[in-house]
Amino acid sequence: MTSKNHIAGPSSGHHQEAYRGTGRRPGLISGIRPTGELHVGNYYGALKGLVDLQERYDARYFIADIHSLTTHPKPDDLRGHVVGTARNYLAGGLDPERCTLYVQSSLAAEICELHTYLSMVMPLGELMRVPTFKEKAKRHPDNVNYGLVGYPVLMAADILLFKAETVMVGDDQLVHLEIARTIARRFNQLYGNVFPEPRPLIDNAARIPSLSGAGKMSKSDGASAYISLQDDELAVEEKTRKALSDPSRVYREQPGHPTAEGCNVFHLHTFFTGEAEREQIADLCLSARIGCVECKRKLARSLSGVVEPFRQRRERLSEADTLELLRIGRDKARASARQVIAEVRQAMGLQML
Amino acid sequence: MTSKNHIAGPSSGHHQEAYRGTGRRPGLISGIRPTGELHVGNYYGALKGLVDLQERYDARYFIADIHSLTTHPKPDDLRGHVVGTARNYLAGGLDPERCTLYVQSSLAAEICELHTYLSMVMPLGELMRVPTFKEKAKRHPDNVNYGLVGYPVLMAADILLFKAETVMVGDDQLVHLEIARTIARRFNQLYGNVFPEPRPLIDNAARIPSLSGAGKMSKSDGASAYISLQDDELAVEEKTRKALSDPSRVYREQPGHPTAEGCNVFHLHTFFTGEAEREQIADLCLSARIGCVECKRKLARSLSGVVEPFRQRRERLSEADTLELLRIGRDKARASARQVIAEVRQAMGLQML
Ligand code: SF4
Ligand code: SF4
Repeated sequence: MTSKNHIAGPSSGHHQEAYRGTGRRPGLISGIRPTGELHVGNYYGALKGLVDLQERYDARYFIADIHSLTTHPKPDDLRGHVVGTARNYLAGGLDPERCTLYVQSSLAAEICELHTYLSMVMPLGELMRVPTFKEKAKRHPDNVNYGLVGYPVLMAADILLFKAETVMVGDDQLVHLEIARTIARRFNQLYGNVFPEPRPLIDNAARIPSLSGAGKMSKSDGASAYISLQDDELAVEEKTRKALSDPSRVYREQPGHPTAEGCNVFHLHTFFTGEAEREQIADLCLSARIGCVECKRKLARSLSGVVEPFRQRRERLSEADTLELLRIGRDKARASARQVIAEVRQAMGLQML
Repeated sequence: MTSKNHIAGPSSGHHQEAYRGTGRRPGLISGIRPTGELHVGNYYGALKGLVDLQERYDARYFIADIHSLTTHPKPDDLRGHVVGTARNYLAGGLDPERCTLYVQSSLAAEICELHTYLSMVMPLGELMRVPTFKEKAKRHPDNVNYGLVGYPVLMAADILLFKAETVMVGDDQLVHLEIARTIARRFNQLYGNVFPEPRPLIDNAARIPSLSGAGKMSKSDGASAYISLQDDELAVEEKTRKALSDPSRVYREQPGHPTAEGCNVFHLHTFFTGEAEREQIADLCLSARIGCVECKRKLARSLSGVVEPFRQRRERLSEADTLELLRIGRDKARASARQVIAEVRQAMGLQML
């Protein structure tokens, strides 16, 4: 039993007001990084937000494999991660009937064409002042390729190709979205009113703590510090057993500090365990009537309550099914993308051959 | 009657040796700037070279409308210039049975996709050190857009999309071709041997002098300083009558200096008038038995010998015919371009969806 009301969703803002009663859902787009396995932190950090949004928006989600080329991933890794990521997000609740899920490179022709046109209206100087670029350029001075500085231009193409009004982004992407807005404005000034200026929908998703107590759950922290969505019940129990609890509670007879700040295990309970059970645990802990081992076993059960249904849905979804669903997404996305490309060509004066 | 042996063609070099006896012609590519009307200087400066090369190479010629977007031409101008340029080059002798003539943007999907991938392997620093970029950035500091610094990357995509071994370029483009070679090498290092390194075929075409005597014939010199390929016989005669001749020959009774250096009109004769007639003119001029007015009338006839057949062929070629031929070129080019795109995606590890 998970206590869903404790998980903050993306802040919806005012974007939907205009569509009330029209039957049309506003357009939204968001990119998904092609990574390997997901952990429960990702589930609440990104996936669940997207699942919620597909109900309220005409949502397009794409697996951003072209973006990932800036770092030259090994071809076989990239191939595997793209299908794996799609499979995970579908198992996690993205519904191809409600949203459009596609691989960025399956629309490469359209996205890259628009990217090239947009590159003609975006000042280089502004791109080189983007903080994330400056930082990457500092860290990997040998790998500052032309495509890296153009990352926000490619992102603008992803967005403008669908005339998306709303873009779900993390805080760190707000500067990039500002560039997409600049590009839309500049294009419209030069060639007529083609693109709406996209607005951000800030992804203020829950930050699930690491099992180790060291900040946010993350794969870079080692396999024992996160619960993978592919872990079976035994693995979940094993990892949870080693999670950091209240360090000041040394003996079973001592009371603990069952708060988000006082105990990492309790902090995790606040995300995954229902309120009634959680209050009971707090009571027992404060009076030293429950040991941490048992408390962690309860947390493991709560975690498996999230992980197991995911794992089973994932297992039922074959790679072939996943690819088939991605093809459906591609076709849906491509139809509207091609209309925009035709409009852009017309506006710029390119021959309609 | 034109004396064709006085017109230098492109230097063919060693590229064809390897193909002798194989029945296959080596691949060559060259871009054509979408300008308005052509003058006889362009005819010998660029067009005739391409006409000759289509016999010896598997030649692809494209009208570079995407490149021209860096300067934001007016949409209607661009549209008109693209068809106009195609019509001129077809009238000038490009034969769609021998070469492949297409509009760059009619292959935008393929070219821009490759351009985006290549942008991921090309260091930004090297692009910013290209002299033509540095110069443009100095002259138009407000118009240095991301696409401008990427000009050589887009050019690399034009070339590598066909795995062209040979590229006909002017001297000023050699630096860009060197970048295309760098990109090919870098891509091959990262992803396996996909692209041949293209080699230059230097376009050392004839430099036809201006009617005004001020350097090379050019449209920027004013309409009376060049012979348009659309001028009728009357216009050709009018303009030639006003051409600069030997300035030291003030009176009809004086002998002139009938050499390329001594008289601009005679210089023009060396390109357009047959050797026998030219020697006769020189004789008469040296003994003051011909006046400059009559000499210019002879030059006008020679010029019309080039211009008239062109003008008539151009008039027989409708805009609809031109568009149809461009569509045929597009289809031919696209078929081979798509094979290369599939190979590139495979090499980089993109899903074949
Ligand atoms: S019983 Fe639970 S809440 Fe209390 S200290 Fe132990 S792990 Fe933390
Ligand atoms: S007769 Fe002809 S060659 Fe002689 S000076 Fe006059 S224009 Fe020149």
